[in-house]
Order: sequence, then structure tokens, then C-alpha cells
Amino acid sequence: MFEFQILHQDISTKARTGLFTTPHGVIETPIFMPVGTLGSVKGVSPRELSEIHAQIILANTYHLYLRPGHKLIRQMGGLHRWMNWDLPILTDSGGFQVFSLGKGNKNGNSQVKLNDDGVEFKSHLDGSIHYLNPEIVMDIEHDLGADIIMALDECAPHNSTKEYSRTALERTHAWAQRCLTHHQELEAKKNTPNSDTAGRDPQALFPIIQGTLHEDLRIESTQFISSLDTPGIAIGGLSVGEERSEMYHILDIMQPHYPEQKPRYLMGVGTPLDLLESIERGVDMFDCVHATRIARHGCFYNNDGRHQITNEQYKADSLPLDPEDPENPTYQFSRSYIRHLLREKEMLGLRLLSLNNLYFLLKLMEKIRASIKQNNFKTFKADFLARFRDAV
Amino acid sequence: MFEFQILHQDISTKARTGLFTTPHGVIETPIFMPVGTLGSVKGVSPRELSEIHAQIILANTYHLYLRPGHKLIRQMGGLHRWMNWDLPILTDSGGFQVFSLGKGNKNGNSQVKLNDDGVEFKSHLDGSIHYLNPEIVMDIEHDLGADIIMALDECAPHNSTKEYSRTALERTHAWAQRCLTHHQELEAKKNTPNSDTAGRDPQALFPIIQGTLHEDLRIESTQFISSLDTPGIAIGGLSVGEERSEMYHILDIMQPHYPEQKPRYLMGVGTPLDLLESIERGVDMFDCVHATRIARHGCFYNNDGRHQITNEQYKADSLPLDPEDPENPTYQFSRSYIRHLLREKEMLGLRLLSLNNLYFLLKLMEKIRASIKQNNFKTFKADFLARFRDAV
Repeated sequence: MFEFQILHQDISTKARTGLFTTPHGVIETPIFMPVGTLGSVKGVSPRELSEIHAQIILANTYHLYLRPGHKLIRQMGGLHRWMNWDLPILTDSGGFQVFSLGKGNKNGNSQVKLNDDGVEFKSHLDGSIHYLNPEIVMDIEHDLGADIIMALDECAPHNSTKEYSRTALERTHAWAQRCLTHHQELEAKKNTPNSDTAGRDPQALFPIIQGTLHEDLRIESTQFISSLDTPGIAIGGLSVGEERSEMYHILDIMQPHYPEQKPRYLMGVGTPLDLLESIERGVDMFDCVHATRIARHGCFYNNDGRHQITNEQYKADSLPLDPEDPENPTYQFSRSYIRHLLREKEMLGLRLLSLNNLYFLLKLMEKIRASIKQNNFKTFKADFLARFRDAV
Repeated sequence: MFEFQILHQDISTKARTGLFTTPHGVIETPIFMPVGTLGSVKGVSPRELSEIHAQIILANTYHLYLRPGHKLIRQMGGLHRWMNWDLPILTDSGGFQVFSLGKGNKNGNSQVKLNDDGVEFKSHLDGSIHYLNPEIVMDIEHDLGADIIMALDECAPHNSTKEYSRTALERTHAWAQRCLTHHQELEAKKNTPNSDTAGRDPQALFPIIQGTLHEDLRIESTQFISSLDTPGIAIGGLSVGEERSEMYHILDIMQPHYPEQKPRYLMGVGTPLDLLESIERGVDMFDCVHATRIARHGCFYNNDGRHQITNEQYKADSLPLDPEDPENPTYQFSRSYIRHLLREKEMLGLRLLSLNNLYFLLKLMEKIRASIKQNNFKTFKADFLARFRDAV
């Protein structure tokens, strides 16, 4: 279980294709994972997700812990059963949300209270006080039952001083080790006859590289995180407000230190440009809410780039969102009609744009995988970017 | 075209089954028609509608006339192409909305200006002034291109005096006649080579019975409307605030005066109880927004009645919405999960409840048709209502 098989290494870049095996199926890398923060990918049903060939989706531990609670989801048979999704699932640790949302309501002046053991925070829903540490997070993620679970980390702001970045990094490393230790205990229990978790599916822990934008910290973190006995690693603390060029530079810095045989998951990244640039730098897995979020603001992707459906130019446009791809599940609907739905706030409009954008990203990943196999990635990337005009 | 074939007449009631032929397919009566006010059934895609065996859907002329405009929809190929719905469509005339919405914004003190020729009203969207009369409404509905189109009528308040009810009734009759005359001219043009509408699909006009709650006016209106040369008739001015018993009484009063060979469409009716009571009184067609509207408020139907999914009792309920029907398209999702989606305002929650409620009504109609064919309607109705507990 959790074997990572590298199928093809690109000749001229660090891009590669592979297969990662989980209890709920094998995923093809490089892969994009749609995000179902609250246990549902916004606007898209599980059936639609599988029809556009989503192979693995995300859910968010912080949100599900607060509501409806991991104990309830366990009682209902775990996340797969609960969400009606039989393919692989990944849960983040909630760490990122604790620091970004865990200050109670917006107008409160309370603080997230951080110490070496763990973190106290206030629910953004009702201000109630909660405490998480590596062991508690592992317990929660084991109750949720995703195939891949993330370690608790501290994602320091990208512009942190080197001193603070080191403090946060050391805490992240200590927590990763504690997560692993407790995770291994929980895995061992599954193999213990008569334990209350006996027979449950195994889960894979991915610890997270941090180090903000400091090169030496990033190298140190890559080496430490990679040294842990886990089937994969993740890269955190990027795409959090820094310049794009800074992110690419940090990816370049870390790349030589990745272990060959572990999949590398870059958290929170998912624009077409960032996907291509990161895959070129050896990244295997991605997630991002961007595609569905911009859909809810009326944006759609096609090979020409990102467009605003509510623009006047689409008023009498009888073409589909992407006229070049008859397999696109929104192909039967005109831009004119979808524009009308968006203006009238009809749910179907948000559904169609969300579906289109996820389909576009998943199809892009499929094309990328094919181009790597054909030793054609660099050309594919250049051709795609020569045409694709994004807003950012 | 527009042939109505009566298949079976119930022995002990006025209920009957039939087939009504349109250019986009044959519909089985008694039938429930889901409503897509703005050109989309809220929360449900065309594919989902056809999977739950919707045979015909509604769209609203008032709304589509105001935005995006019937000319645009014609330019896009008409409603069927525009909505991506190849089965029959019915458009109402917009008359009902003109009187209920056409006073500009809520705080305005402007009036709907009614005269014998037509009606001037203000858009509820932007306060702009518009004018509709029978000929204009026919032009609009011909541009939209639905299979069944409704005549312009005046739906007087249910508690109108007899004097006003008569005035409104006479206007409704005069308008029905003018609609028919203009409709016939437009139909003739379709058969005229080189006319700009040559070759377009034929459409069926249904005029509307009015008369508020006055028995003699209702009888007079039923006789007049039935005498017009149209393939079907409609019943308006019911389910608009009167008591349920008053509605049933008026249906009883009109029933002996219906022509046997025309389908009868009761507008705006669609709770399970009202469907059963009206079918028993010889009604063949229904539409109502109720099922999808209550879904958006968290309500779902099953054989036990109407329930509120957000109630605490469903928090850890692993059953589907309707545990008795594995063919229900929401069967794979637990009440616990759907409750969570509703509480979190996830679109999927509204989708699943809307789909469940429409499926339930369409399945109920299927069972009703089967019971009529088996001369078992009265027993079916009694058994259903003995168990089904509605909120109203």
C-alpha cells in the first residue's frame, strides 16, 4: 500500500509521471485534487467529479472538526461513506486554517495562542475555544479516515524574519515527528485484533516542508521532512502572498533535495501557469480552491485563458465555453445562456462554470502527463502558455 | 399534432389518463411540470430532469421578456436550444406576474395600468415601463417557441366582488379570443414559404378559465374558454390565497362543463394533496414552484410527508431521505450529510433536496397514472394520504 511508482522521467526538466497507490485506488501523477472544504466540492456532485475524471479530492480538517465534528463523521462510517466518494481522499491538518481563521470573529481582538505543544484558537463560527496538537490532529484525521492525511504544521507568514521562520520551522519539524509517532501507533492499532479500530483502511501521513522564503531553511526542512518514514512529502508556506518568482525560486532551491521515490505535494497551488511551472520543478500533486472560487465570480477557463462570462460580449454568443472540446460536460450550453444564469443568480450557472473550470484543469493535467510520457513537456508548456491569458 | 388521446377513464372518479402529443414529444397525463421560471429549474440540470423522467417543463414569459429578452432567445434558436431541453416546454403568458410583480420596486406607489386593450406595468428589476396586450404576448411566446403557450388573462384577486370578477372575466375572454386570432395568424405564417418564420414548429395555445370564486362566472368561463378552437384549456385564479375547500368546490363546479377531449391544466398547483384532489376532479396537467422552493428552505418529501432536514433529529441519521426507494437519485446520501450541507449553505445540499422533491412528485404522478389504469385510484389516494403528513 502507498507505493509510488515512477513511470517516466522527463529528459529536459524535472517533470515526471507516476502512480500512487491508496486503499481507494491508484492516482496518476502529476495530479490536481479538487477541494471540498466542508465535505463537498462547491457546486459539483460526486458523480460529476468522477465523470470529469477527478481521481482524488480534498476535505478540510479544521472545518469538519468544528462542524459537524469528526466523531459524527466517524459514526456515519467515515468521510468516504459520508461524502459518497469511493475514490481517494486527502485531508489537510487544519493547521493553515487555525492560523488564518482561528481568531474568533473578525472584530474580536483575541489571539491564536501557540506553544511548543500545540495551539489554542477560537472557532470562526461561534468564538468557542479549541485546542489542537499533533496527537489530537492525528486522532481527528484517523476518525475522518482519508487515504492521505497531513501533519500539523505552522505556516509562518512569507515575510517572517529568519529568526521567527526558524522557530516556526523547528516547531513544524517537532510536530511532524510527533504526528508520525502517533500516526504509527494508530496504524498499529488497526492491525491489533479486537482494538476498536481493527480492520480500518491504512492511511498515509505526509509531513510538510516549511521555511518561508529563506533558502537554507528550505533546504534544511526538505532534508528533515524527507528523512521521515512516510510515503510522501508536502510543501507548505508557498502561494501565501509572496511573488510568483519567489515561489518558483524556492521550488528550484528545494528540488535537488527531494527524495526520488516520494511523491511531492505542493499545497494550495492550482492556476494553470503555477501548475506547469511547478511540475517542471518536480512537483507531483496539487490542490487549490481557485478554479471553483473564480467560477462563483463568473470566470471560466478555456485554451485562450480566463474570461468573465458576465461581460457584454457574451450576451448573444451561441458558442459553448470551450468550442474546441466537445467532451467538455458544459458543451451543450451557450455562453449566452450561462451568462443569463449568472446574472440571474441561478444555481445552474455556478454549477456549469465550476464544472467547466475543474474539467479544464483535470484535462490540462491529463495533457501534461501525456506530454511528459512523450518527452514533449517543454514544448507543450510553451505552446499552452503562448496562448493562455490568465488574469493574474 | 397536439392530439389528446384519452387512455383510461377511472370508474369511480373523474380521474383519467391520456397522452398529449407535441412537436417535442408525447406527454403522459396526469402530469406534473417542473418550473424553470428564468429558464432553469432551480438547482436541477436538464440532464437530472430527464433522469427523473420530467416530460415537460415550464418557463416564464414575464421574466424572460424582461431579461434577457425574447428577441435574444429567438436569436439563440429559441427556448429549447437555449435551455438545452429537447422535450416539451410550456410558457405561461406573464399575465399573473404582471399583476403580482409589475408595480416596480416594492416601495414604489405606482400602479399596474389596465385597460381593455392591454396592461402597462413597471419592471420589478429596474422600474422601466412596459406594455403588453394579447397580440404582443403571442408575438413573445412565438419567439420563445414553447410547445404550449398560454393566453394573456387577468387573474383577479380571489376575494373580488362579483362585479369586478365579471369585468376581469370579460376582459380575459376578449383577450383569449384576440390571442387565438393572432396565434392563428402566426401559425399560418409558419406554413407560408419565404415568411421569416417558415418551417418553425407549431405551437398550441391554451386559453385560461377565470371567474374567481363565483360559481356562475366559473361555469360561464369554462363554457366560453372550452368553446374556443384550441387543443387544451387551463384553469387560472385558483391556489391564489383562497381556502383549499373553496378551490376543490370550484373544481367540482367547473368539472361537468369541461370538454371531454381537451386536456385541462390547473395552473400553480402542486402539493401532493392538491394534486390528488384535483386529479380526482378531472384535471390533467399541473405546475408549481412549491417542491423546489421548499427544498431551498430545507424541506424534503418522502412517503411519510414533508420534513425539515435541518432538525436536530437528522444530525446522526444515516438513512437516505427516502429509505424505501433505492431508485431515488439522492439514495446514496445520508440525511446526516445533507443536513450538514444545508447548514453550511453548500449548493449540493439544495441540489439534492430539489432533486428529491421533484423526483418524489414525478414518481407520485407515475403511481397515480398506474392506479387509474388499474381502476385503483381511490384506494391509492386514501392509502397515500393516510400516511403522508404535509405541513399545510
